Amino acid sequence: MQKTREPKTLIAEGPVIVLVEPQLGENIGMVARAMANFGLAQLRLVNPRDGWPNDKARSAASRADHVIDAVEVFETLEAAIADLQYVCATTARPREIIMPVLGPTEAAGKLRQLHVSGVRTGILFGRERWGLENEELSLCDAIVTFPVNPAFASLNIAQAVLLVSYEWLKTANLPPLFAEEIVPAKRENIAGLVEHVIGSLKETSYFHPPEKQERMEQTIRTILTRPGFSDREVRTLRGVVASLERRWLKNTRKDEG
Amino acid sequence: MQKTREPKTLIAEGPVIVLVEPQLGENIGMVARAMANFGLAQLRLVNPRDGWPNDKARSAASRADHVIDAVEVFETLEAAIADLQYVCATTARPREIIMPVLGPTEAAGKLRQLHVSGVRTGILFGRERWGLENEELSLCDAIVTFPVNPAFASLNIAQAVLLVSYEWLKTANLPPLFAEEIVPAKRENIAGLVEHVIGSLKETSYFHPPEKQERMEQTIRTILTRPGFSDREVRTLRGVVASLERRWLKNTRKDEG
Repeated sequence: MQKTREPKTLIAEGPVIVLVEPQLGENIGMVARAMANFGLAQLRLVNPRDGWPNDKARSAASRADHVIDAVEVFETLEAAIADLQYVCATTARPREIIMPVLGPTEAAGKLRQLHVSGVRTGILFGRERWGLENEELSLCDAIVTFPVNPAFASLNIAQAVLLVSYEWLKTANLPPLFAEEIVPAKRENIAGLVEHVIGSLKETSYFHPPEKQERMEQTIRTILTRPGFSDREVRTLRGVVASLERRWLKNTRKDEG
Repeated sequence: MQKTREPKTLIAEGPVIVLVEPQLGENIGMVARAMANFGLAQLRLVNPRDGWPNDKARSAASRADHVIDAVEVFETLEAAIADLQYVCATTARPREIIMPVLGPTEAAGKLRQLHVSGVRTGILFGRERWGLENEELSLCDAIVTFPVNPAFASLNIAQAVLLVSYEWLKTANLPPLFAEEIVPAKRENIAGLVEHVIGSLKETSYFHPPEKQERMEQTIRTILTRPGFSDREVRTLRGVVASLERRWLKNTRKDEG
């Protein structure tokens, strides 16, 4: 019988990503790929150096074709954000300009809140070489900045888009991709395992000297209780102990016989 | 008047990043760059396809030379994680194997907590093409998975390292957590326990039928790895197994004598 695959949901909503004068097609493609991974789909370019369409961009996008096909190109930043209602600008450096500064998590929360309220939002990313001009920043509502290593701050544009997109998707209350929770066994089954092991050890010289036996039993009980083994794990461990026991019994019977 | 630059702090601490059989030097370099951005500095490679050192890696690392210079190369995953005490594996897909599954934020919190307690931690990333094998996963304590677009899940290895490293640095300002009482044993000591138990079971009829042996060994490895046993606990468990063994040996010798 063939397994039926459930159709997978393509998430494609949320803030518009705006790249200001991007230079390398590879970077534009990697941006599209990063967006697609985290459910963003609208990419706008302001004056891309090598024009548009761009084969290198499509190739670097790794089949994020729905993003590449929907790219819109604008001559000015003003035009690119004209229909938006709330725009954040990403920048690594503090600027002279006075604006609210948000971390990526905060920014994602704010953007999600606005998005679910029907507000059209966007996030700006600057040029590979020198980012965004103060005049461009002044068109925005807030700055988003990344907490990076002070002595090694070298995020490229695709990495910056990846982090923002990732934070964006984290704000959706998606069900977990796969829940494989370990359900701890009932205490009585853990107790059964502990008694099994201790009972088995009593047949050996393990508990020596006798006055330490109680303390040693307690140690074993603690070790086997703390992990919160599941029922399946308990069954496996009992199988292990039983198997070791059978080996003795066989030998013991031989001894006796 | 000249402005004096404050010296910037180079953050370089935290989990070891382990790449299993990475193929492209560019990816290794981008991983080093991602790590440096977020303050990680220890990179280990298991069997890199093109050997080491690798010029493409250094070039793609964008001056993250302190990471590239400190790269360590290993022939096996076991050797690469031998001195670590808590290891997470990143994987996008659900597996048959039953282990705790953490989101990146949770994982970063857990890793930070262990790190400040002096526990040596690591994070595994699989091959570009097919990730990690189940046997490799069974050497780990937990799986880290990313919340991605169900219909477009295409994170490359450098992007995955970037996200984990980013979450790691975000935990830097968390208030210190209580020290964990149980310090997990080094991986090599866990491996020793697993080999001891499996070796001992091989003397019994436990592994039956033979074609299931590999799977059964993997189950035992997972069960004995997941709890994060301390060195003391490992010693106790080895004592338990040794004692059971001595019992056989005694009986066996009687048989023979």
